[in-house]
Amino acid sequence: MTRDRMDDSLIDVPPGLAGVVAAETALGDVRGLEGFYHYRQYSAVELATRKPFEDVWHLMINGTLPDAAQSEAFAASVRPARELPEAVAAELPTIARLSRGSDALGGLRAALALASSAYGFVPLYDQQPDERVTAALTVGAITPVLLTALHRLHHDQEPIAPRADLDHAANYYWMLTAQEPDEQQWRAINAYLISTIDHGFNASTFTARVIASTGADLGACVLGALGSLSGPLHGGAPSRALDTLDAIGTPERIDPWVREAVSSGRRIMGFGHPVYRTEDPRSAMLKELARGFGGSMVDFAIATEEGVLQVLDELKPGRALRTNVEFYAGVVMELCGIPRQMFTPTFATARVVGWTAHILEQAAGSKIIRPSSRYVGPPPPQPFD
Amino acid sequence: MTRDRMDDSLIDVPPGLAGVVAAETALGDVRGLEGFYHYRQYSAVELATRKPFEDVWHLMINGTLPDAAQSEAFAASVRPARELPEAVAAELPTIARLSRGSDALGGLRAALALASSAYGFVPLYDQQPDERVTAALTVGAITPVLLTALHRLHHDQEPIAPRADLDHAANYYWMLTAQEPDEQQWRAINAYLISTIDHGFNASTFTARVIASTGADLGACVLGALGSLSGPLHGGAPSRALDTLDAIGTPERIDPWVREAVSSGRRIMGFGHPVYRTEDPRSAMLKELARGFGGSMVDFAIATEEGVLQVLDELKPGRALRTNVEFYAGVVMELCGIPRQMFTPTFATARVVGWTAHILEQAAGSKIIRPSSRYVGPPPPQPFD
Repeated sequence: MTRDRMDDSLIDVPPGLAGVVAAETALGDVRGLEGFYHYRQYSAVELATRKPFEDVWHLMINGTLPDAAQSEAFAASVRPARELPEAVAAELPTIARLSRGSDALGGLRAALALASSAYGFVPLYDQQPDERVTAALTVGAITPVLLTALHRLHHDQEPIAPRADLDHAANYYWMLTAQEPDEQQWRAINAYLISTIDHGFNASTFTARVIASTGADLGACVLGALGSLSGPLHGGAPSRALDTLDAIGTPERIDPWVREAVSSGRRIMGFGHPVYRTEDPRSAMLKELARGFGGSMVDFAIATEEGVLQVLDELKPGRALRTNVEFYAGVVMELCGIPRQMFTPTFATARVVGWTAHILEQAAGSKIIRPSSRYVGPPPPQPFD
Repeated sequence: MTRDRMDDSLIDVPPGLAGVVAAETALGDVRGLEGFYHYRQYSAVELATRKPFEDVWHLMINGTLPDAAQSEAFAASVRPARELPEAVAAELPTIARLSRGSDALGGLRAALALASSAYGFVPLYDQQPDERVTAALTVGAITPVLLTALHRLHHDQEPIAPRADLDHAANYYWMLTAQEPDEQQWRAINAYLISTIDHGFNASTFTARVIASTGADLGACVLGALGSLSGPLHGGAPSRALDTLDAIGTPERIDPWVREAVSSGRRIMGFGHPVYRTEDPRSAMLKELARGFGGSMVDFAIATEEGVLQVLDELKPGRALRTNVEFYAGVVMELCGIPRQMFTPTFATARVVGWTAHILEQAAGSKIIRPSSRYVGPPPPQPFD
């Protein structure tokens, strides 16, 4: 190690590092005032509604949207990575048994901790760029396989082997439900997964980059990100928004329920976001997908959204709280028949691609992320017996 | 979630967040210019040479140095936590087998991922302060048990059960070597462990706090910290400094070896630190402990240090590169008979106490650590087919 600052002066910034530039990125940006976010120049919502997941995965990792031939070659290259090494596959029932008190994400933590040696992940610091890309694609490919297998094993069901004839979104649905998605379900799942790949410097993405900055192996970075994702303050829990719908129950209860929630200071899950000051573009897209399904649950969700926004505008004027991604994400996943315990794991299935892209970008630099702290206790040294 | 900043303005700071105050802490401070660091007012070096590990553990977690009665009560309270729950103990051979391609720290990652459910760790966000303290003490108590057991299992040796009649440092040595340390070994190990508990906002401590800020469970925070610790740029690898001694081999090779290393731009492990501009106080303390052991290896280490510093002063005048903690830490652990593969795990055994103290402090606040990034790619939106 060498020293990199010539004095001990401290730089004060807003609490939680809010607004502080922790890294430069070419991966994308969230423009909160405009209600717009993009992946490497391309509108994420446009990508989500018009491309298969693999093309956007290619964009994030390799830097460009693939043409038809590249698209096919990339898809062909990542599908074999879905096959778990025998050493991992054979131990999945053991890992599932050991992680039974936890959910699929808890099992994934253990599986990734163990897979690091099975896959021979080595420190990013010691890898060439192409070796890092291989590791990133491997983790992106095995995450949905491990999550669905562990979920099923936790529920006394046999894991369902991945199918090489299905694309990423369809194969995910297959491994989870033993059914192929219909066209509408495929469009919804594919769009949700793409729209969730990346979204600025949330705490999990930042965690992944902090660990990557030490040169640790890619599995360690993803493990840390999964830890942050598990935090209740991180967000990314679409099932909680559905819990709100359940709690309200019927359309006539919307207004009194929301008034009661606001007046007692409770947070209404599915509303508000730290970055967007306008409609969350993911929410708008998912709402349209939900409308396509139709039915009483969608009607109730839309009525609830309208009721909540009306009461919030009345009771908290000027706050401009809007529906966030969790609200319609939960609705759409429910409509697709994804079990609620798998809502956050489905989110993680997509976000791991974003994490790995950020890890590769961070690893390409050589600067460790090492902030300072300010000591606020009584002055030392204090003698003692 | 609610929004917390009213605009999207970004705050530029030095790369890697160097010098940026990411949190306030009452746990301690490193005064790089003075070559001094402390834990809650008390000189860490003074503590290391005059207190048993448990007293400093109490200081970090409970906030005060215990009196005699508190000291005894605290030691009595943490010793039972060394006993692994049957569900974990029974599976250790399986975890060791699955993590065989890794070292003890890799195995610890898997064990902690699985222990989260065995111990029923719940999100910090949902815990009362006393429940968080219990979780913190548990993780501090089981880490050395798991590390030594996994190390032994990886080497086809039976784990050695912890002994309730030994204190923390002696019990650690016992579980690792099946021997009780003699007085000199005990003093060295106890001092090393205490001096390594905390040291400012290194990347692993910061990682633990980032994850804790999401409200995730304590096991997830420590898992992330272990990931950062595994990074080659983090430091904390005392075995690499010993590798330097091995590479030099004999006293007459010191001068030419160092000149060759400096002229070819290689980093000399064991020298230089990002914070200290003067002698690392940990290095000075460990050097004295090494002197106490005496012998040809100590003489060679001291001669090497002098030779390196002389050549560095000549070839890099004004840089004031000094011996860091890794150099004599490696020497002292070797003198104590700790196997080299266990140098970094021994470091982790101590640092986990610091991590958990930081996690408790972070969890007591409610602010998520969520910095921003600056987009530096070409401007969006870019249309596509």
